[in-house]
Amino acid sequence: MAEKSRVLVKSRVLVIGGTGRIGKFIVEASAKFGHPTFALGDIYDQESLLTAIKQVDVVISAVGPTQVEIQDRIVAAIKTAGNIKRFLPSEFGNDADRGHAVEPAKTVYAIKGKIRRLIEAEGIPYTYVVSNYFAGDYLRTLSQLGATAPPRDKVVILGDGNVKAVFNKEDDIGTYTIKAVDDPRTLNKILYIKPPANIYSFNELVSLWERKIGKTLERVYVPDEDILKNIQEAAAPLNHALAVFHAVFVKGDQTNFEIEPSFGVEASELYPDVKYMTVDQYLDQFV
Amino acid sequence: MAEKSRVLVKSRVLVIGGTGRIGKFIVEASAKFGHPTFALGDIYDQESLLTAIKQVDVVISAVGPTQVEIQDRIVAAIKTAGNIKRFLPSEFGNDADRGHAVEPAKTVYAIKGKIRRLIEAEGIPYTYVVSNYFAGDYLRTLSQLGATAPPRDKVVILGDGNVKAVFNKEDDIGTYTIKAVDDPRTLNKILYIKPPANIYSFNELVSLWERKIGKTLERVYVPDEDILKNIQEAAAPLNHALAVFHAVFVKGDQTNFEIEPSFGVEASELYPDVKYMTVDQYLDQFV
Repeated sequence: MAEKSRVLVKSRVLVIGGTGRIGKFIVEASAKFGHPTFALGDIYDQESLLTAIKQVDVVISAVGPTQVEIQDRIVAAIKTAGNIKRFLPSEFGNDADRGHAVEPAKTVYAIKGKIRRLIEAEGIPYTYVVSNYFAGDYLRTLSQLGATAPPRDKVVILGDGNVKAVFNKEDDIGTYTIKAVDDPRTLNKILYIKPPANIYSFNELVSLWERKIGKTLERVYVPDEDILKNIQEAAAPLNHALAVFHAVFVKGDQTNFEIEPSFGVEASELYPDVKYMTVDQYLDQFV
Repeated sequence: MAEKSRVLVKSRVLVIGGTGRIGKFIVEASAKFGHPTFALGDIYDQESLLTAIKQVDVVISAVGPTQVEIQDRIVAAIKTAGNIKRFLPSEFGNDADRGHAVEPAKTVYAIKGKIRRLIEAEGIPYTYVVSNYFAGDYLRTLSQLGATAPPRDKVVILGDGNVKAVFNKEDDIGTYTIKAVDDPRTLNKILYIKPPANIYSFNELVSLWERKIGKTLERVYVPDEDILKNIQEAAAPLNHALAVFHAVFVKGDQTNFEIEPSFGVEASELYPDVKYMTVDQYLDQFV
């Protein structure tokens, strides 16, 4: 809130999908940190897209799953415009290149990977933001599908509950993303948002919540094979959400690899001045 | 969402208090409509304020009640900078000059009025946005204090329930505000956001909700003198909220005067292309 304006030295930022799930937090952070900020709703009009891109230095795509594939249009416009210093394609989830997801999530990650390869082939400067789970979707509900608050009686735990996942508040994802756009340390790298206080296994998360509300929940464990069966039987988009659950809570795709300097950097290490909201603080809101 | 970028012809917009209750919706609308958009958190550092103001064409203040009075600092900085084409001070409620509020709300409106007079005395081009009630605070709960959703059993109605009030969705307030900044028709005028489908008495609102949920609620009417007593007995900030309730639901301050062309314009008349969310549509979300 006390961020001062440093208007003159900040790059101009275009957020495509700037009114969507995560895009609006990126727009807010960008404007707050003094970047001249623009938002664009869709990417269907190539001329508008090109006009917008020509006015800025940085392009951030936060388009939803159905538009991930047609980001090749953004890449083409950036290539034509020739002025973009950094492009952040729509990622904001698990690492598309290092996962073990089953279908239908597997295909979405493959498309994200394809867009990565296209960006690299075109020589466009990039940062890929692997934000892991959005707290508003997965922490607020303790990952209980259909819930709007953490459970108080029974909790469904996917897998054995010992696999670690990462939960970040959307505002913090917006802040780290914007911090990265002018930073040479994130150039052509993956920015992982994986702050130490936000890494929890399902069992640890439930225990933390139980301590807060002073009550023990009934824990219902869903084994791997049942999750896989549920994914096959569920309709879209539920099957997709379940397949990501499986990748995160069974396969451990948010925490099962080391971040090597050759390909990645971690956000809370790069920006220790950002006071991110911890999982512990986040859950306090719902006690 | 399909708004095209018209970056070159749009004024640059600074939103002070751009991460607050209504400020974030203004930032989002501004960036979405292609304005180079900046947000500033506080107004305590006069140098940062001046630097930020010098980079833009339009200044919108969306500071909260505790900072309304020190908006004289913004006025001073705008005067020094000399480049601002339009200033929108923090209003976003009832008309400060045409109300009948009791204390403590009376003083807040008086301060807003004082800021208006200062702006006019300094010859700064302005628009005052009288947004009436925020739907998220007062429609979502049917104005039941402490509630987070509309009531399903009993509803407390202030006054006789026949006085009309106006409820607007925050996103629409952001959109109308941004539409106004480059519009000569709103220059040195009050922009009232009072679309015809959003004007309801308390009784009409309850009847609409009852029809939606197929159930009759117990209506508890609180007479004028009891509200006044409650205001005197309540602590801050509850007493302020109650005093505004009194001004709106007993005195009718959102609807008890005509908008004359000499001082005001109505947003939905000026911008018929904006598809605002109606009260009817808004309540459908909670059925």
